[in-house]
Amino acid sequence: MITIYGDIDSGNCYKIYLLCHLLDIEFQWQAMDIAKGDLQTTEFLAKNPQGKVPLVELADGRFLTESNAILHYLAKGSKLVPADAYLNAKVYQWLFFEQYSHEPYIAVARFIKRFQGMPESRKAEFESKQGGGHKALKVMNDQLSQTAFLIGEQFSLADIALYAYTHVAEEGGFNLVDYPAIRRWIKQIQLMPNYVGMQLKN
Amino acid sequence: MITIYGDIDSGNCYKIYLLCHLLDIEFQWQAMDIAKGDLQTTEFLAKNPQGKVPLVELADGRFLTESNAILHYLAKGSKLVPADAYLNAKVYQWLFFEQYSHEPYIAVARFIKRFQGMPESRKAEFESKQGGGHKALKVMNDQLSQTAFLIGEQFSLADIALYAYTHVAEEGGFNLVDYPAIRRWIKQIQLMPNYVGMQLKN
Repeated sequence: MITIYGDIDSGNCYKIYLLCHLLDIEFQWQAMDIAKGDLQTTEFLAKNPQGKVPLVELADGRFLTESNAILHYLAKGSKLVPADAYLNAKVYQWLFFEQYSHEPYIAVARFIKRFQGMPESRKAEFESKQGGGHKALKVMNDQLSQTAFLIGEQFSLADIALYAYTHVAEEGGFNLVDYPAIRRWIKQIQLMPNYVGMQLKN
Repeated sequence: MITIYGDIDSGNCYKIYLLCHLLDIEFQWQAMDIAKGDLQTTEFLAKNPQGKVPLVELADGRFLTESNAILHYLAKGSKLVPADAYLNAKVYQWLFFEQYSHEPYIAVARFIKRFQGMPESRKAEFESKQGGGHKALKVMNDQLSQTAFLIGEQFSLADIALYAYTHVAEEGGFNLVDYPAIRRWIKQIQLMPNYVGMQLKN
């Protein structure tokens, strides 16, 4: 069985948690509290010198980092990763879009606002994240106005990766009212069998 | 045959160019000059509304964006993508690392210094990129001190993606003198059969 070291408040960790539920993958969750400094202990740094979660430990003790690489590893061969070469590449197009054009704006703004309580020292940075975040939301909304899911009519790994921070974008100050296609898509994902929200289940 | 819309001065475009040479993939190169505004023409925006390169047009007229998703598409099934599930995931770990922890520092600093000539208005931003860039180089150097290539003893897609901006990191103000393992690895890649540098061949 795999062990996931994660903080469920982090979208990057939650996306792994959601994937495991949707695909019925067995896992052990090792809760790490970022705010309490759990990532800076000698014990954790021995596992991941970069001091970041999510971190996955395989049954044989080897480790994987980078949330979307972990998604790729866990979803391989599943219905969430199309065999068709073009649709398959589209999944990865969205995964890289997420880490380059979405997460650095929306996740960082959310962290400053929700978890740091918007300190004066980061207010300018918070403001600077709004433009890029809305640009990313617009790209998603444009696509979701044309197709049910990000790569087309098929629900895929791309939706899981993008859903994680998008469904809590308002916590980063991004009002979703102008993105009706995103709101429709969020509801659709929340109705899926085995869906779990951003809280650990007992 | 695929058409690659790219600016060879961009590491994200060059990595596709290098991959095609190493794997002997036929392609047509459509040179786009970012500095001259080639990405903002109506004609190009019709192909990619985000106005970014690299953009790949497949033989059937469909498009792909995101440099590392394009690498994934083109290298599928080749010797550059290991079949072993763990090594395979490691490739993607490095690809996501590149776009999240390496490119936003090293490529942006290089752009400001080399292509914008370090305007006063971006000097603070340039300085702010140095810490993150060195952090990424240290992660690479630590790995390359232990193994020949990024995922181990096997040359892979990960090396191509990371090589693109690393071998010109000095143009972004990152002196590689303190990263001997990276310098050794750069030389090794440059000696590979079919290697091409960052200039278009006639």
